Amino acid sequence: MVSDIIRTMKVSELGEFGLIDRLAEMVGHSQSRQKSPLIIGIGDDTAAWQGDSSVQLATVDSLVESVHFTLDTASYEEVGWKSLAVNLSDIAAMGGQPEYALVSLGLPGDTNIEDITDLYRGMLALAEQFQVRIIGGNVVSAPQLVINVTVFGSAISRDSLLTRSTARPGDRVAVTGPLGAAAAGVEMLGKGLEFEPEVVVALRNALLRPLPRIAEGQLLVEHDVRAAIDISDGLIADLDHICQASRVGARIEADRVPVALPVQASFGERALGLALAGGEDYELLFTASADRVEKVRKAATCPICAIGEVVIDDKHRVMLVDSQGSPVSPSGKGWDHFRVERGRR
Amino acid sequence: MVSDIIRTMKVSELGEFGLIDRLAEMVGHSQSRQKSPLIIGIGDDTAAWQGDSSVQLATVDSLVESVHFTLDTASYEEVGWKSLAVNLSDIAAMGGQPEYALVSLGLPGDTNIEDITDLYRGMLALAEQFQVRIIGGNVVSAPQLVINVTVFGSAISRDSLLTRSTARPGDRVAVTGPLGAAAAGVEMLGKGLEFEPEVVVALRNALLRPLPRIAEGQLLVEHDVRAAIDISDGLIADLDHICQASRVGARIEADRVPVALPVQASFGERALGLALAGGEDYELLFTASADRVEKVRKAATCPICAIGEVVIDDKHRVMLVDSQGSPVSPSGKGWDHFRVERGRR
Repeated sequence: MVSDIIRTMKVSELGEFGLIDRLAEMVGHSQSRQKSPLIIGIGDDTAAWQGDSSVQLATVDSLVESVHFTLDTASYEEVGWKSLAVNLSDIAAMGGQPEYALVSLGLPGDTNIEDITDLYRGMLALAEQFQVRIIGGNVVSAPQLVINVTVFGSAISRDSLLTRSTARPGDRVAVTGPLGAAAAGVEMLGKGLEFEPEVVVALRNALLRPLPRIAEGQLLVEHDVRAAIDISDGLIADLDHICQASRVGARIEADRVPVALPVQASFGERALGLALAGGEDYELLFTASADRVEKVRKAATCPICAIGEVVIDDKHRVMLVDSQGSPVSPSGKGWDHFRVERGRR
Repeated sequence: MVSDIIRTMKVSELGEFGLIDRLAEMVGHSQSRQKSPLIIGIGDDTAAWQGDSSVQLATVDSLVESVHFTLDTASYEEVGWKSLAVNLSDIAAMGGQPEYALVSLGLPGDTNIEDITDLYRGMLALAEQFQVRIIGGNVVSAPQLVINVTVFGSAISRDSLLTRSTARPGDRVAVTGPLGAAAAGVEMLGKGLEFEPEVVVALRNALLRPLPRIAEGQLLVEHDVRAAIDISDGLIADLDHICQASRVGARIEADRVPVALPVQASFGERALGLALAGGEDYELLFTASADRVEKVRKAATCPICAIGEVVIDDKHRVMLVDSQGSPVSPSGKGWDHFRVERGRR
């Protein structure tokens, strides 16, 4: 199942996505004989299975102190908010409605109770906004803060799910909002960069208080969009996930990529690179016919930008081109948790 | 909501259960206005909510390297098995049927791929045995191995759930199997104790390959038992959870507590203490009328022992008595993750 060469590799050599592929293969092989109403297993934004009358969705994500955030630059409240937000974003990327959350905390024994109640305050503020109930979880001792959140939700039907594998050649590629502000926030906080107050607040909030695009995901479903993903790893990397799963290529026009204004204002020539490869924007990236994208754009309350198109490509590549269609070299391929060159908060 | 005195405390001072109480209070206060089909939130073995035709269950637990296990004495395969088993046990304690699992791994980058596939092998072996499907999860970088497993399941109806709050004075207290072997395994592995091969294998398997009592939980439901918990913190501590939730007391006859044979054979006078307070047995502790306990005993394929009774007690105490009814002092109150005096593997 797993070749001998891979067996002897380290996680950092194989990378996060490589490891997940191997584990998915192993699980699929072991469990292929089981019958169940499973619709989507490992490899999309959430798992999905057929319930009695609706489709059930579930997703999990972990934030680890000093890997995904540091308490030097983020408050407990912000960490709480974000730990729930990244999971709600996965539900948004399926076009679903989040309903319940389980919270599992790993904590050092000398953590202040007040800090943990602050963490919960941040989580509850977001939960309230999206009518999500925190229904349980657990607390264990750990050498550093680890927040693991599982979110359950539902979708109308299996045909309404926004998946990664349904992009078709000819589709337009579009995004729900401006990009790059979270990655710019990482740099600002990590390097102690100073900007004008409006920029500081915008970058900090983009990184630490992202707003999951729940309503927008459902709007995509209403307009018969079928392919979407949330931008957590970076525009190029997440579009790459869609291309691999859909067995297509994509061409992105660099000039059309919406770079968040505070990033343009503060990062000059590097702004586009942050928007393309920075990650953690938690906007939705989707593909659909030009006609459907235009209908979504008119109905949405957030900016919707068509930035390229899905093409036939045996190698399932994401190509970045200029306005004349000539290739442009992207500055990075997004975020891989085990192959990181820069700090991430 | 949370008093000033508590705010300034450390997690290790307040303890795991104290912290969970505070967080439950905070969540309840914040979300009391939300309407939902929630049946059980924070404070039982699993959360439960009304689905379209059955009750949905969800639970989460984390194992942290060097807190809950060490790879010096446990194999990756065993750690994988156990990380799923502790969650299936929570479903068993509700009388439910486990269905799906999400696995979230935190890993150092220099972990060998083979070790992680071994971990999955252990998890899949148990999943197959109980027809549970692993449907997704995620992988993040972390300074040490953290395995977070969320399990979803279902129960027939809300009236069939085995909860902590339904013990009634006059009920017998009973357990599904012999106790103390997992705690003895902790001591054996931690201190490098040497025993005869049969004892070594039995203690190691009790600790690292526990078998969740799924069928037994469902058998309790069939026999109209209403109150149960799984023994993870220790017999006394878990019975204390039932007493607090049900607002009753309990009296346990020390001589009736079933101490596992390998523990009797290897730990002499300390064997009873391990059975009472050791924890991690993952047997079911339940209360019901003498008549129902007897029916369960006849129908079960595992040993069922009546060990005491539920009594009226304003202070909701667990009392340990000898065969004459005189108080015996228990050697400990079970396992609290933040107030641990001995190592746990």
